[in-house]
Amino acid sequence: MGSAAASPPPSGKMSQDELKRVAAHRAVEFVEPGMTLGLGTGSTAAHALDRLGDLLRAGALPGVAGVPTSLKTELHAARVGIPLLQLDGARIRLSIDGADEVDPDLNLVKGRGGSLLREKMIEGAGERFVVIVDESKLVPRLGCTGAVPVEVVPFGAPHTLGLIRKVFDGLPGFHARLRTVADGDLVSAPFVTDNGNYIVEMFFEDGIRGDLQDISDRLLRITGVVEHGMFLGMATTVIVANNDGTVSVLHRKSKLI
Amino acid sequence: MGSAAASPPPSGKMSQDELKRVAAHRAVEFVEPGMTLGLGTGSTAAHALDRLGDLLRAGALPGVAGVPTSLKTELHAARVGIPLLQLDGARIRLSIDGADEVDPDLNLVKGRGGSLLREKMIEGAGERFVVIVDESKLVPRLGCTGAVPVEVVPFGAPHTLGLIRKVFDGLPGFHARLRTVADGDLVSAPFVTDNGNYIVEMFFEDGIRGDLQDISDRLLRITGVVEHGMFLGMATTVIVANNDGTVSVLHRKSKLI
Repeated sequence: MGSAAASPPPSGKMSQDELKRVAAHRAVEFVEPGMTLGLGTGSTAAHALDRLGDLLRAGALPGVAGVPTSLKTELHAARVGIPLLQLDGARIRLSIDGADEVDPDLNLVKGRGGSLLREKMIEGAGERFVVIVDESKLVPRLGCTGAVPVEVVPFGAPHTLGLIRKVFDGLPGFHARLRTVADGDLVSAPFVTDNGNYIVEMFFEDGIRGDLQDISDRLLRITGVVEHGMFLGMATTVIVANNDGTVSVLHRKSKLI
Repeated sequence: MGSAAASPPPSGKMSQDELKRVAAHRAVEFVEPGMTLGLGTGSTAAHALDRLGDLLRAGALPGVAGVPTSLKTELHAARVGIPLLQLDGARIRLSIDGADEVDPDLNLVKGRGGSLLREKMIEGAGERFVVIVDESKLVPRLGCTGAVPVEVVPFGAPHTLGLIRKVFDGLPGFHARLRTVADGDLVSAPFVTDNGNYIVEMFFEDGIRGDLQDISDRLLRITGVVEHGMFLGMATTVIVANNDGTVSVLHRKSKLI
């Protein structure tokens, strides 16, 4: 864990959404005029977009533009008046996004919303990556609170699922399945990503133990695997909205990977 | 290099295509009744498909079926009467395919035809993988005779191309480009794979030096990279049609990966 600083609690009891908003506003304080930003996806990142839009309209952040990590974010950013750039050729100074889980080394699980590949590409391209979460997302190990997603090519997806299972062969409580969406009353269809791929969801009884980089490599070596939702050594700052109303800021000095 | 055995040269001068056919027929000798096969793609693999069709029609290989590595192979196999199976659930005993390059450790470059992902998935799933080449494909190092392909997602492809270049930063003579197809007289469009992805072509002045598995991992860690055309430790047997008309068979006892 990096250095931590807690702000004093605001007066009055705040809702979960208000806490997310406070943390998001704190993240936007890192933005300086002229910066190109990676714009995250999700309910917490949405608060950052709104705040950025307010500041841009007020003339406080001239020259700021963003690279969106999903179509949803692209539409939201356009609505609030954030100029948008393509990833190609952009020099991203700072990305702001939520996360599904944060471990003590600031490794993340992301992509339960399904847009992990674009998020990883854009947030990995930037110089700094500020993550905004509420306290419930802090975990002792990745994979403690829900699915770790893996994006796979549709061709041979059940075969690829079998190879993913082999990586964790014999691990008690581990299971994996193809993510589906309800399609009518009786049939379920595979969930399809922005890139036309499928998602395998991995579940761990007590989180992922072992060398995460090694596990990452073993997953990436599987031919049908495109990318996974473990973001290792990418977050440089994590802003935590605590249940007691305070905000903690965790830093890491430099990206490890 | 594994053990080598050369057959006596056939009488008379043979063309390149006749040599490919002789090697392909030799590969088909490994096929036994009841086997499920991985069916390769390309001009050399096509000879194996024809030979399999002849033997099936003659009743010599009851119970043989195949999993095709491309739509082209699927159509060809159906035409010559080879029963086809889906990859999912099939137990592939043996795959037969050509290769663009074979190094002394029987590592391959494949995929200059553009179907590397399905080939790698199917041929990696089998117990044995028999490769058929003419002598010109034997190289001291992978990447000596042309492009090493890398399949990448379309989103952010120029950014991914930049990250691939960084893996070989400073290597004299290295260059990489997005593979294109002529689209009209003046415009070139990206080549699109069976999986809807693009191809980056890497070129090396004197082949790839260094730890191939490490280079593979570094490529696969790039977020936009889906797969690459280095087939490491996959070939169990390589059948070589020599320029002098002889056929050599190179073996490796077991798959390394």
